[in-house]
Amino acid sequence: MLLGDKVLNRVDAIRDIVEDALESFILERMSRENEAIPMGIAKETILAGGKRMRPVLGLLAYEACGGKEINEVIDSILSAELLHTATLIHDDINDQAKMRRGRPALHVTHGIPRAIIAGDYLFSIGFQLGAGYSEKVVDLVSSSCFGLAAGELRQLNHVRDLSMSPEDYYAIIDGKTAGPFSTGGAVAAIVAGAPQNLVDLMKSFGIELGRAFQLVDDLLDLTGDKTMGKPRGTDIHEGKMTLPLIHGLTILHGTEREQLEDVLTSFSDARWEELMYLLECSGSIDYSRQLIGNHVDRAIEYIEELPDSGARTMMLEMAESSRIRTT
Amino acid sequence: MLLGDKVLNRVDAIRDIVEDALESFILERMSRENEAIPMGIAKETILAGGKRMRPVLGLLAYEACGGKEINEVIDSILSAELLHTATLIHDDINDQAKMRRGRPALHVTHGIPRAIIAGDYLFSIGFQLGAGYSEKVVDLVSSSCFGLAAGELRQLNHVRDLSMSPEDYYAIIDGKTAGPFSTGGAVAAIVAGAPQNLVDLMKSFGIELGRAFQLVDDLLDLTGDKTMGKPRGTDIHEGKMTLPLIHGLTILHGTEREQLEDVLTSFSDARWEELMYLLECSGSIDYSRQLIGNHVDRAIEYIEELPDSGARTMMLEMAESSRIRTT
Repeated sequence: MLLGDKVLNRVDAIRDIVEDALESFILERMSRENEAIPMGIAKETILAGGKRMRPVLGLLAYEACGGKEINEVIDSILSAELLHTATLIHDDINDQAKMRRGRPALHVTHGIPRAIIAGDYLFSIGFQLGAGYSEKVVDLVSSSCFGLAAGELRQLNHVRDLSMSPEDYYAIIDGKTAGPFSTGGAVAAIVAGAPQNLVDLMKSFGIELGRAFQLVDDLLDLTGDKTMGKPRGTDIHEGKMTLPLIHGLTILHGTEREQLEDVLTSFSDARWEELMYLLECSGSIDYSRQLIGNHVDRAIEYIEELPDSGARTMMLEMAESSRIRTT
Repeated sequence: MLLGDKVLNRVDAIRDIVEDALESFILERMSRENEAIPMGIAKETILAGGKRMRPVLGLLAYEACGGKEINEVIDSILSAELLHTATLIHDDINDQAKMRRGRPALHVTHGIPRAIIAGDYLFSIGFQLGAGYSEKVVDLVSSSCFGLAAGELRQLNHVRDLSMSPEDYYAIIDGKTAGPFSTGGAVAAIVAGAPQNLVDLMKSFGIELGRAFQLVDDLLDLTGDKTMGKPRGTDIHEGKMTLPLIHGLTILHGTEREQLEDVLTSFSDARWEELMYLLECSGSIDYSRQLIGNHVDRAIEYIEELPDSGARTMMLEMAESSRIRTT
């Protein structure tokens, strides 16, 4: 599709801006006496790629909200991406994940102590970059970090918890993913000098797209292939209760429910077909797809309230494409 | 000694201000939806005590530099103490330390994942509190966090490195300890509205006192008793090359040097007397004591340049007492 291609190319161009900004930033920091050592380690994860959804959306939201000077927003974009990377590095330790972005996780190549310190260093930079903005921005960024910590702790508290509710699940993904997406959009709007109604719009948009994003991630753990950069079924091995599993446990009764419980409590790759069969029976995969659609629809409704602009078109396109994301 | 007692009582009073501020702060944060969970874990380490050297010195430096309104500096004091606590929690994971401040370390009671997240949460609060100050303050605080990360990574790079030099050692303790002490003093002076010469004075004072503080800590690991809250010889078991060991390896020759190498590379508690004998032979314990004295002397010279005040007297007293600290 011609339009799609064009839009894709333009999103790629924005992703290039992000990559260039990250690379220049890292280069500059590598020249500083005390930063060369921690950045030398941290940059491996920063530059390993990733979708750059957060920074690309941040730049688009800034432009869609009337922002004119990319230099005034770039620090907040870098801040968000570096804070995100810090949490990825620490998460991988906590999840004992072997891979990240298709490469060995940082704690695998450098050991846990260096990975913890590299993450802490990125936290420090993230906040240094964020501190240059208004108190409102600082409070939003801090709050999203608090929410992220709370979300991760909630998730740990529910590992292998077969009685976990959808509300518990949403509290976790709102903290872990939707909160940071929402903050990213709101910060971009504030920095662009947008009125409060646009800031609120970007906040709501971020919540909905972030939820869709995490739901897709969790669904791909069940249905995805190796192009994701981590093996299928990682969440189940780690005992993470994602929405399709919670839904399946709610819908199924009798023997099938007992079977699903048994699969989840003593999971092995040999039981993969069994699990997928049960989730088909309960309609849990379709249910998750439906919810993803609902969240994307709502995200799109928020974007449609924005004044017309190229950035708005690209945001619509990105929201649409997240519906069918396969990696 | 009457004067000493009086001063001690007044330092205790200042420590009480710090404890009260920490407790009120924690209480307020515990009432927030997203913070109750991470703070519920983190507060165990925050409230486990500790000497509160950094916050007490921060308050004294603020007053000694002409500060009049404690409310304007307290956030920076809390920020420094919470960032410090964050690094302690993460350090204990990295060092596989079992104890902290006389209690089980946080990762021992809550597991590594929750301890990592609790530390990240404290980093986020630390920066939120710090972000309210000027760019100069934010840059000082961030830089000291970068230096801390670099110092810790340098230390990891030199684990069991018998050819480590005194310069390597100083680079490590300047990053880990002297830098944060120096930043604490400088920030207090800036917030007090002090002229640049006082800010520089507090910076230099912090470097010297921080070096003395870390040298004492490292010496107590060899000579101290169980009141330290961690067992004697922890550094040696972890392969951390502290100054007395580096000095011993430099001074000794022939059989004795070989023996010291052997003790350090295959250390066990049974070889304790042997190690201490060798360090006596090389005069390394006395050498460390002498260096501690030199750093304290220099710290005192800097304080003596401050205008006369009650806070200045207490700073002098604290510097003096760090010479003979046994816990």
